Amino acid sequence: MTATTKYPAKSHARRSAENLKVFAKKRSVDESVANSSLIYAAASKPTLWPHCDQNIPFRQNRYFNYLTGAHDLHEGHVTYDISKDKLTLYLPPLDKEEVMWSGMPLSLEQAQAKYDVDEVKYSSELESDLKAFTGSTNRLILAVDESEEYSVVQQSDLLLEALDETRMIKDEYEISLMKRASEITDNSHLAVMSALPIEKNEGHIHAEFVYHAMRQGSKNQAYDPICCSGVNCGTLHYTKNDLPLEADKQLVLIDAGAEWENYAADVTRVFPINGEWTTEARAIYEAVLDMQTQTMNRVAPGVSWDNLHQLSHEILIKHFLELGIFKNGTPEEILESRISASFYPHGLGHMLGMDTHDTAGLANYDDPDPMFKYLRIRRNLQANMVVTVEPGIYFNKFLLEPVLSNPEQAKYIDEKVLEKYLPVGGIRIEDDVLVTDKGFYDLTKITKDADEIAKIVKAGISKGRDHFHVVV
Amino acid sequence: MTATTKYPAKSHARRSAENLKVFAKKRSVDESVANSSLIYAAASKPTLWPHCDQNIPFRQNRYFNYLTGAHDLHEGHVTYDISKDKLTLYLPPLDKEEVMWSGMPLSLEQAQAKYDVDEVKYSSELESDLKAFTGSTNRLILAVDESEEYSVVQQSDLLLEALDETRMIKDEYEISLMKRASEITDNSHLAVMSALPIEKNEGHIHAEFVYHAMRQGSKNQAYDPICCSGVNCGTLHYTKNDLPLEADKQLVLIDAGAEWENYAADVTRVFPINGEWTTEARAIYEAVLDMQTQTMNRVAPGVSWDNLHQLSHEILIKHFLELGIFKNGTPEEILESRISASFYPHGLGHMLGMDTHDTAGLANYDDPDPMFKYLRIRRNLQANMVVTVEPGIYFNKFLLEPVLSNPEQAKYIDEKVLEKYLPVGGIRIEDDVLVTDKGFYDLTKITKDADEIAKIVKAGISKGRDHFHVVV
Repeated sequence: MTATTKYPAKSHARRSAENLKVFAKKRSVDESVANSSLIYAAASKPTLWPHCDQNIPFRQNRYFNYLTGAHDLHEGHVTYDISKDKLTLYLPPLDKEEVMWSGMPLSLEQAQAKYDVDEVKYSSELESDLKAFTGSTNRLILAVDESEEYSVVQQSDLLLEALDETRMIKDEYEISLMKRASEITDNSHLAVMSALPIEKNEGHIHAEFVYHAMRQGSKNQAYDPICCSGVNCGTLHYTKNDLPLEADKQLVLIDAGAEWENYAADVTRVFPINGEWTTEARAIYEAVLDMQTQTMNRVAPGVSWDNLHQLSHEILIKHFLELGIFKNGTPEEILESRISASFYPHGLGHMLGMDTHDTAGLANYDDPDPMFKYLRIRRNLQANMVVTVEPGIYFNKFLLEPVLSNPEQAKYIDEKVLEKYLPVGGIRIEDDVLVTDKGFYDLTKITKDADEIAKIVKAGISKGRDHFHVVV
Repeated sequence: MTATTKYPAKSHARRSAENLKVFAKKRSVDESVANSSLIYAAASKPTLWPHCDQNIPFRQNRYFNYLTGAHDLHEGHVTYDISKDKLTLYLPPLDKEEVMWSGMPLSLEQAQAKYDVDEVKYSSELESDLKAFTGSTNRLILAVDESEEYSVVQQSDLLLEALDETRMIKDEYEISLMKRASEITDNSHLAVMSALPIEKNEGHIHAEFVYHAMRQGSKNQAYDPICCSGVNCGTLHYTKNDLPLEADKQLVLIDAGAEWENYAADVTRVFPINGEWTTEARAIYEAVLDMQTQTMNRVAPGVSWDNLHQLSHEILIKHFLELGIFKNGTPEEILESRISASFYPHGLGHMLGMDTHDTAGLANYDDPDPMFKYLRIRRNLQANMVVTVEPGIYFNKFLLEPVLSNPEQAKYIDEKVLEKYLPVGGIRIEDDVLVTDKGFYDLTKITKDADEIAKIVKAGISKGRDHFHVVV
């Protein structure tokens, strides 16, 4: 295996150390901390459920993953000696009984060949290495979390800030992992859209997506899929996924993404249950698509995400005025009233990476402005960020009640027109977008064209149950 | 909903209190503890992964489940006042912001109608209720775990022992849940056996099982499926599930079970990759089936599980002598040498219920005898226990090395004959068995007949990839 095919752990360590210097300066921390510390991170450990001999599903510590690429290694450690520029991976010691049941783990040599680190050792050497590092000096060992095992390790918010900022900018290797996660996700969404004859409830939608992702080698979902139908599409955190796809429902909304070596995709698509869009569903769909297209087309380095988010609200308002759902005001007055936030309460998108809601978005959940309170990115875009672009429109009684009962807001809403749109439930269209030097690259390839979607759904229906076959 | 259709929480509380009295007496604890305490349990709480806004998968606390039937309720509490015979369920308080995103939770009235409890309250009342209970008396509030919220609650091993013993004996309602889990599991195993044209690696086997379980409404697996092929079948804790089903491999082994309302199934089946058993695989298969059939046929109240486990070793030895793998000794001498434990290192079975390895088996992992060390049941059978019966034979170099290098044991093994069997990897056959008043009832219905299995596999292969369709 050549160095270029490895996950670039060493480069991540170096860039994190650079950012540590930047934040040390910004936070007026003594520069020796950034110049001479040891960075430390531990892998997640297999952990049992309480009163049970089964493990909680394993989720690798993202910071350990970032500094090693060892995405499925249990119980490892990593250190990066900033002044020596030396990255060391520590493997757990060989457990003879465990070998009997589970086979041989990775050897030191295999790990050295596999990972982009300077040295591989067993963790039995870690304690003395840490002690040797601090020695009689006052050099620090910085970690994202306190260590239960090594008291010499110190939790450091400064390190956390530096690592989060570094993780925000993806390199070529990370982008290749995210492209693979996107590809698996595209195929799985296509499978869901194509399989209506065997999808009789929301659980079948969920099963179909997970199945096709697993068949492509994605054992874990990036997040718990949201699979809803009819008015449930307006419940933003709907994860029950257990109601029937009845004939009187209009739409299915599925928000689901596969994970590839701990990198996430996060994609939402909506399709008509019987292949035909109702007039109302189509109108709302085109409004959301317009919100998404216009904002995405403006994605580029230097662009303010706040401005894009506001633009998506302005486009919503324009469509709602055209449809007659909004009335009695100029677009500016209606924007000012913030009623659009009750139809579109979440943000335009978020950072995407190892976490679905990835690091360094700098959200401000205390913002009193309802239009910005839930916006997860509050900074300008930079090249090699990956963000989701996911506007939505929802008709949710819990969201609308406060607005409809406030005359100052209700005056802009035509309740009679609104009523026609309630059965649409909710529509969101979500793609994953890489910010490039001059603009953007859409990682998500599954169609969002309303006519094409209808065609896919109808083609699936016409095949019937018995002629269904796996898409991937 | 009538009382008989509810999960019998009240009966579980009463029976647990009775067992608390039994164990108080046995452990010489003051009888007032068993007569006048309050039993307390908390539901599992949604918990975030570290440095992440996503939840760890939710797994309901089994003791809370047992005393309420509220298998998917997050953040609840339950108390049982022994002297008043009163079972009270506490729901989490209404969170207005959460309603906006997730919809309305269960109301007090809905919970009262749904669960077999005497009263339903909001947990805002719990603290004062607990204080009122202890009052000026020295009555205790006993719990399986310490409470972070309520310092008046005391962890009690006595309660744990009583609850575990009570959980061991299943009632009719629990058995109906386990029958449903078994049925889903049967269908999913059949689907896996039938789909060879689309199963090109172990991950596809895994996906196929999970998919069919999910399609039937089982969102969670009872445990992480073991899907292996070829010599991996000899690695007992194999969960990588990612190698190709190459043509030179003989067998697939799949150990997987669905969960239904937190009750588990746990079933293992083995099938030939191309539909034809090799002579060696068939011989080992018939030996394991003989071990399983003969032990299962003896399952009845009062029977010693130690004896059944030993019987399964005796049958293995008989077959190995006939096949020529063992030599130079009487069955008694060979049993005494414990070499059979290197081919069959695990126990005959375990309790099954809400946990896959359910409570009160009284295993003794410190037993120096390798034949009994890993046996998870060390007591006589009783009516309404549910146990797995799962003998196996494995050809695993890490297990065999110590035996083959010890002349006192190696003398009984014909290494030349043994070599022919190494590619078989490993075979286990596992059913879930209810102990009845006079014998047993096998909950597992998917065939284990070698010829029938070959027929199912071949029928699947003959259909080909494009004519595959979902089994359920």
